[in-house]
Amino acid sequence: MANEELTSGTIAGMAARLRQGEVSPVEVTAAHLARIERLNETLKAYLTVLPERAMAAARLAEAEIRGGQYRGPLHGVPVAVKDLFAIKGERMTCGSTIMASHVAEQQATVNQRLEDAGAVLLGTLNMHEFAWGGTSINPHYGTPRNPWDGERMPGGSSGGSGVATGTGLAMGTLGSDTGGSIRIPASLSGVVGLKPTYGRVSRHGVYPLCWSLDHPGPLTRSVADAALMLQAIAGHDANDPTTSRLPVPDYAQQLTGDVRGLRVGVPRALFFDQIDPQVAAAVEAAIAALDGLGVACVDVDLPLMRHVPTASLTLMVVEAYAVHETLLRNHSQAYGSDVRVRLALGATVTGAQYLKAQCFRSLLTQEVSQALQSVDALVTPTTLMTAARVDEPVVRIDGEDVVVAANLARFTRAFNMTGSPALSLPCGFDDRGLPIGLQIVGRPFDEGTVLRLAHAYEQHTPWHQRVPVLSD
Amino acid sequence: MANEELTSGTIAGMAARLRQGEVSPVEVTAAHLARIERLNETLKAYLTVLPERAMAAARLAEAEIRGGQYRGPLHGVPVAVKDLFAIKGERMTCGSTIMASHVAEQQATVNQRLEDAGAVLLGTLNMHEFAWGGTSINPHYGTPRNPWDGERMPGGSSGGSGVATGTGLAMGTLGSDTGGSIRIPASLSGVVGLKPTYGRVSRHGVYPLCWSLDHPGPLTRSVADAALMLQAIAGHDANDPTTSRLPVPDYAQQLTGDVRGLRVGVPRALFFDQIDPQVAAAVEAAIAALDGLGVACVDVDLPLMRHVPTASLTLMVVEAYAVHETLLRNHSQAYGSDVRVRLALGATVTGAQYLKAQCFRSLLTQEVSQALQSVDALVTPTTLMTAARVDEPVVRIDGEDVVVAANLARFTRAFNMTGSPALSLPCGFDDRGLPIGLQIVGRPFDEGTVLRLAHAYEQHTPWHQRVPVLSD
Repeated sequence: MANEELTSGTIAGMAARLRQGEVSPVEVTAAHLARIERLNETLKAYLTVLPERAMAAARLAEAEIRGGQYRGPLHGVPVAVKDLFAIKGERMTCGSTIMASHVAEQQATVNQRLEDAGAVLLGTLNMHEFAWGGTSINPHYGTPRNPWDGERMPGGSSGGSGVATGTGLAMGTLGSDTGGSIRIPASLSGVVGLKPTYGRVSRHGVYPLCWSLDHPGPLTRSVADAALMLQAIAGHDANDPTTSRLPVPDYAQQLTGDVRGLRVGVPRALFFDQIDPQVAAAVEAAIAALDGLGVACVDVDLPLMRHVPTASLTLMVVEAYAVHETLLRNHSQAYGSDVRVRLALGATVTGAQYLKAQCFRSLLTQEVSQALQSVDALVTPTTLMTAARVDEPVVRIDGEDVVVAANLARFTRAFNMTGSPALSLPCGFDDRGLPIGLQIVGRPFDEGTVLRLAHAYEQHTPWHQRVPVLSD
Repeated sequence: MANEELTSGTIAGMAARLRQGEVSPVEVTAAHLARIERLNETLKAYLTVLPERAMAAARLAEAEIRGGQYRGPLHGVPVAVKDLFAIKGERMTCGSTIMASHVAEQQATVNQRLEDAGAVLLGTLNMHEFAWGGTSINPHYGTPRNPWDGERMPGGSSGGSGVATGTGLAMGTLGSDTGGSIRIPASLSGVVGLKPTYGRVSRHGVYPLCWSLDHPGPLTRSVADAALMLQAIAGHDANDPTTSRLPVPDYAQQLTGDVRGLRVGVPRALFFDQIDPQVAAAVEAAIAALDGLGVACVDVDLPLMRHVPTASLTLMVVEAYAVHETLLRNHSQAYGSDVRVRLALGATVTGAQYLKAQCFRSLLTQEVSQALQSVDALVTPTTLMTAARVDEPVVRIDGEDVVVAANLARFTRAFNMTGSPALSLPCGFDDRGLPIGLQIVGRPFDEGTVLRLAHAYEQHTPWHQRVPVLSD
């Protein structure tokens, strides 16, 4: 009972209680560790739990807060990170047995920033092997369980991050997103997931999948919490030359602004066809709700989107192969078969093909940037379906067979190519009780507007109030 | 006699006379056309001469100037462009027989800007086939002749641009530079060549060699003239998304500033080894001259430079292959053998290899950018040697055999990878009377400082006053 109360709700709500001394970081952390202890064997959200490190951090936070040294809204808040964010001295497997005994020699900048903000790191989270897949089906460590239906996939690759966030095993988590790996689990597991602009968050100490497409970001139980976590991790990092020197705004402040008069573009032609009709209906309802809030919703045309699948695959297989070339040569059979096949594909792509995909990417970025001159954001479904069953590789949608693993990133991967900030939040449930995700995409470095629209929508709809009933 | 007087000197000098009506654009243009008529068969600088277009433009300029409509320092000035800058409705061959009858359907932005500035386009200039080579030895149209020695190569790929500028066949020219193709002919033919920052000058209507490395820029008979031509062509172009929106400064003003107190870095370890001792001595003397002008010259270390040859070749063969893939399939035997072999190489490079070269490029750019935090510019030789004979593919330098074609870009290509502005100007002559080039490299979009240093050096040394004697 006490546990339930200390492991639910939002970071923002918990922060107020922690600050006022109503609850202590030690209690909150202990409640989370107890819940992990009780549920993780079933949920398979964590790969490594760090009880001692966490309790030590919680005690320090407690002492600091008592002593009047309040660091901010993450102070004393238990969080966790996908198992590819290095915590110095701790195990990091990237969801692969190849790295089963790997101990991180450095500290990921984002982990350091979370700790500097006073957050308590509970451990590292399960994921699709090496972050390359949208299902989080993991043949080595087991598949994280969807919070809303134990038979179903949580989405990936940051599946453990979505599950831990959605089931009270952490107040918030970090994931990484190369083609949708934050937004897909957010959509399928019913939480908020934010992929910030490329260059907004440091990747130092993050095991790479694709250097030009990887984006770290938070998964949380509210939009305001995503803003809080982004605030802690965003900004230039001398250790990551791809990070921008643009100043980091005050996201909590941007969040609460009025949305009346904002304009949102809806690329209906491409995003509402051949998808689950319940998803389409929920997203249309969300657009109507935004309209009701005074947001002008207009159709936009993004004709180049049709070519994204080929270009995206070309970029990904090449960039991932460049990272894995040596490992693949020495440990080919240790990879899961899906990841191994995709990696091997990378060896067959020529430089000229890769270059053409990069050139297409420039054109796509121009097209999206042009669309975002007349509107403040784009709105689409996050995924074309709700969570499929783990044993269901193909589902029937609109009378056609759809390969789940190949289609989960259909609406998300374009915005890794453009580097745009993109957020997913719940916008309804299907008739099986599975959550549906709404994607909001903004201009480069304008996370503020994305958060503002999402927050306004969230505050005027009931979806975030529904909590999964864990039936194990 | 009259002709000589109207086809020599600088644009700046001619501009003053044109403005005051001392000479007319028609006379100046006619003098150039007559000189081209007389000398081009020997010099092989032009591939296409446009006498009617030029005379029409000259008459218009004359009428405008007489009518008090003075456009600026290029008004009525005859110039010419490398045969890969499209002039709408005119032939453009790129130095290849494959395009021998190609007529340009569009106007290159830089050509339009030259015409908008009142310049008179005389025609298009000979070049290394498809701009891929440092010698300008052209098996199809003949090799432009070095102004200082008819047996020697002019440097390339913008060989015709260097020769026309150096021999009074145009007051100034445009070239393009992918690995050194403006600076190498400037160095070997004894003129000024400026490769501006990547993104400073539009490439719309310029036949590409390598999209991430190509830079258009001027070749002139003085540093001030390079500033004048850059002023006319620089700036954002909606038709070229790689162009920057940064405002274009007043280069003529920046040119004349004081150099006292500027700091210049000299990467001696890499740029003064295994080169022609006469080149090394001339560049050392130039550094001493800069020092005498109050410029602090300090050693800098650029260790990554050693890996530039491999990375540069990888990028170039892939990017050029992407452009030529279809032509190569259909017209393989029509290419010169050197270009054909390099293009074929491009088909063999994998995406992962290309990607690694691009990643190296990021590190190199960081290294150069870091060096340019403590100094305002870098100074190196432009080429390791003076012009070799056309029939001399290998020369002996420092007791070693050096393949000319493979080494001419040794000091230039790194700055295509970093996108830095880089200028070559004459800094002496060897004992054969062949010009020696000094390269000055600046910070991104700081052409002003490069021009200022070059101008100060030029004004305090006699090299620009020496004029080739054409002995045909």
